[in-house]
Amino acid sequence: MSPFSLPSISPVTDVLRDSIRNKIDNKTKPVGSLGDLEAIALQLAEIQNTLTPSLNHPKLILFAGDHGITEEPVSLYPKDVTWQMVLNFLSGGACANVFAKHSYIEVEVVDSGVDHDWDDHSPKPIQRKIRKGTSNFLKQSAMSLNEAKETIISGIELLSEKRYESTNIFLFGEMGIGNTSSASLVLSQLTEIPLNQLVGRGTGLTNSAKDIKFKILSEAFQRTGKIKDPLEVLSEFGGFEIGMMAGAMIGAAAQRKAFVVDGFITTAAFAIAFALNPTVKSYAIFSHLSEEEGHTVVLEHWKIKPLLRLNLRLGEGSGALAAYPLIELSVKFLNEMASFADAGVSNTDSK
Amino acid sequence: MSPFSLPSISPVTDVLRDSIRNKIDNKTKPVGSLGDLEAIALQLAEIQNTLTPSLNHPKLILFAGDHGITEEPVSLYPKDVTWQMVLNFLSGGACANVFAKHSYIEVEVVDSGVDHDWDDHSPKPIQRKIRKGTSNFLKQSAMSLNEAKETIISGIELLSEKRYESTNIFLFGEMGIGNTSSASLVLSQLTEIPLNQLVGRGTGLTNSAKDIKFKILSEAFQRTGKIKDPLEVLSEFGGFEIGMMAGAMIGAAAQRKAFVVDGFITTAAFAIAFALNPTVKSYAIFSHLSEEEGHTVVLEHWKIKPLLRLNLRLGEGSGALAAYPLIELSVKFLNEMASFADAGVSNTDSK
Repeated sequence: MSPFSLPSISPVTDVLRDSIRNKIDNKTKPVGSLGDLEAIALQLAEIQNTLTPSLNHPKLILFAGDHGITEEPVSLYPKDVTWQMVLNFLSGGACANVFAKHSYIEVEVVDSGVDHDWDDHSPKPIQRKIRKGTSNFLKQSAMSLNEAKETIISGIELLSEKRYESTNIFLFGEMGIGNTSSASLVLSQLTEIPLNQLVGRGTGLTNSAKDIKFKILSEAFQRTGKIKDPLEVLSEFGGFEIGMMAGAMIGAAAQRKAFVVDGFITTAAFAIAFALNPTVKSYAIFSHLSEEEGHTVVLEHWKIKPLLRLNLRLGEGSGALAAYPLIELSVKFLNEMASFADAGVSNTDSK
Repeated sequence: MSPFSLPSISPVTDVLRDSIRNKIDNKTKPVGSLGDLEAIALQLAEIQNTLTPSLNHPKLILFAGDHGITEEPVSLYPKDVTWQMVLNFLSGGACANVFAKHSYIEVEVVDSGVDHDWDDHSPKPIQRKIRKGTSNFLKQSAMSLNEAKETIISGIELLSEKRYESTNIFLFGEMGIGNTSSASLVLSQLTEIPLNQLVGRGTGLTNSAKDIKFKILSEAFQRTGKIKDPLEVLSEFGGFEIGMMAGAMIGAAAQRKAFVVDGFITTAAFAIAFALNPTVKSYAIFSHLSEEEGHTVVLEHWKIKPLLRLNLRLGEGSGALAAYPLIELSVKFLNEMASFADAGVSNTDSK
């Protein structure tokens, strides 16, 4: 058995809460009128324990992995698309690249378990391959318990690498053909939401193809029955990219750094991180509500209202990137707007 | 009577629709997976009649005006806040400035009818003052029919000024203490939605203060009874800033330029423009759903789904500015993402 000890995560401190609220309320605007952006400003100020939060060297980390379940008819795209899209990320042509460039966010791609040998003479993803894809979880565990631990630890270790020192906000995303199937099972196990509410169209299945997918995933669920332990759930139904992302979330929170959760699959990673240590939640900013049906159900279950609802269902951090400008605006209004006193504007008496 | 002839607005052409859709669908992503951003990309490409739309020299124009109805207890803030906030816009301290700067958007402030004499030695708003605030519409028409026409024409003329030639996208916003009251009446008259569904908390009224506001506005509605003609509605219940914005929307559309609609009050301006010429709608991008209760009702009435739902209720173009990065991302994915063929990524066979 691998050693498995998680770093501790400090609860976000609320010692400055009143001062931060006071600063927000004295900006030249009606109290509360910046809605959800005020909540993000408060969250970031508390995470950073300052009245002047900042966003430094934001990084998007995309975790890629293959899934044995693609032996079954669960996805519209062939498994090769995983490594092909990794190359697309590396050459800058994917949506993630275009959106990241807009906000000056660096993109890194991690091979968590892609079924591909990379060409030594071309750009390669960061090597953290656990294995060339998970096993088919319809028939057996996706990975061993040891591999599950190794996956989580690898994500934590990645985040502690020196090049991230100056980064205080991470965006996480993923690529892995078949990974909505993995995410549905992980989420159903960890939230106890019935599987049928969590199986969706993925990249665009028809109704009948979705029914087939649901049948396959139900059978996989029955293979194990209900499980509660997050490591066991990861080993049965993960996702090397999902587990590594969960580790990265814990790693970010352990360093008191905020991270942005993308869509349905990233939410499954969050569910694992949350089950391992619920304190991770205070460091998470939920970016968007995916069109993948189950995402709504899960976020409502946790009473989380994400920033965007744009019917995105692309993954690869695209929703996190689309929400990022709103996070920037949240920080900027707090730092740059004039107060009533600064601007000589009359305030209401009702405050 | 002033002469009143509106410029014609060409319907947006759909000759390129199939080519644009085809370009969108061949990007390296599942078909439709960029959701609402695909709709914006298509709209802008059609408005500009090109496969490579662009956003050139975006401008935020803030229209400011005062309201006679503030003689009644309808707002939490004193009327002086209108001119004070205009100065705040001019000195760069307002939310609109901070958000605009983030996206390199120039801010202009138009005095459509502010009750203030500007100091000759300080920065001043663009002078298009119709009068120093409307009359109290509880007791009489807010403005004459002639003034209503002049207001609309002034907005159209503004947009045809030479300095906007290179601008192909406008954001519109407003400032005017009391203007949710004006907007509620304008919208109720033009959409026939009952007034009680359109009266909200404005800048933050309590329940009982909101009841008082509703009583006052009901009485004002009863003074005229139902009216259909948009010019008459504007003259009875406008808003110089609201009417001028309506004119600016018509002016933008007449030049085949897109414009971004902000919140509840900007939507009232849109209602006037739409009643004058429904073709204006194809050029409008709805940015956000305001927390002002009536905004939901009106947008649902028109079956419009705006980009954001952030519980903003600030006005001054803040919602349009918050949505602007999403509009930029829409244009960028269309222009910059690789196609399946470019990137050597396998596509599904189902297309």
